[in-house]
Amino acid sequence: MSEGSKKGRKHTISMKVNHSFNALARIAGLFTGRGFNIDSISIGEAEEEKMASCTITTHGDEHIIDQIIMQLDKLVDVVDVQDLTFVPHVDRELALIKVESSKQKQTEIIQVANVFRAKVIDISPESLTIEITGRKDKVDAAIGMFEPFGIRKVARTGTIAMKREYEPKD
Amino acid sequence: MSEGSKKGRKHTISMKVNHSFNALARIAGLFTGRGFNIDSISIGEAEEEKMASCTITTHGDEHIIDQIIMQLDKLVDVVDVQDLTFVPHVDRELALIKVESSKQKQTEIIQVANVFRAKVIDISPESLTIEITGRKDKVDAAIGMFEPFGIRKVARTGTIAMKREYEPKD
Repeated sequence: MSEGSKKGRKHTISMKVNHSFNALARIAGLFTGRGFNIDSISIGEAEEEKMASCTITTHGDEHIIDQIIMQLDKLVDVVDVQDLTFVPHVDRELALIKVESSKQKQTEIIQVANVFRAKVIDISPESLTIEITGRKDKVDAAIGMFEPFGIRKVARTGTIAMKREYEPKD
Repeated sequence: MSEGSKKGRKHTISMKVNHSFNALARIAGLFTGRGFNIDSISIGEAEEEKMASCTITTHGDEHIIDQIIMQLDKLVDVVDVQDLTFVPHVDRELALIKVESSKQKQTEIIQVANVFRAKVIDISPESLTIEITGRKDKVDAAIGMFEPFGIRKVARTGTIAMKREYEPKD
């Protein structure tokens, strides 16, 4: 993540793409060609066979992001693209966090995990592995709380997002 | 996902990479250049700044995967690469599933969600959005159970994985 990528509003872009990973290289190319960094990317199976859902979060100038979205829309492999930034949506990510843990610290770490409704999914005499799901800021906060114990490893999925269905009428 | 990609054993490859998404294009290129498809990919922040954790799942011939891993290891942007396939590890993914739901069907859908310890995170008169975390086969099973109600949209993160710490001694 370069410095530049942190300027401007955070955008969450949701796509449906052909599950061919030539597509991935092309999508990545569109961003990097414009000097944009992708903050996170998640690609998994979509509701239809041979299709993948792809969510990208990025930061930057509105005008350039509009152009990128127009260009994404033109890619053969991209069936649907939506900028969810200005649309009510739910977004979540998943992280696995391996925390240093002596026997004495275990209870304390598990208490922190409970506060975040996180789960311990692996345990050894020297570490606990925690699974946490939530919005990015919740995951960031949890990692911040585990830091004093010592973090051995973090694996994060990047954000996935979905449009809210219910739109309140004025 | 092409037919070919489903042959051979499933591999879970965990990497630590520079958080520059030129890296992404290069990594994707290594796989597609060998005719390999990536089944899923997740890239998010790692424990160190400016680094990203990247998990790729793929299928294929052992020999070719070994070569790909050797080549990944040589990439400047790749700091660490590990094939977790033959190592005890925990793996999880996250999915958001938007299910069609009339008022009459709501209770039934929420019951299915409860069985999978999934959470309803959005509700409208015509749909429920479900958040589920687990191994890929659990998420697949849940999606299978929601299918009869009608699935509007699925967003999946792809798998993230972490080595288990405790190794039992014989």
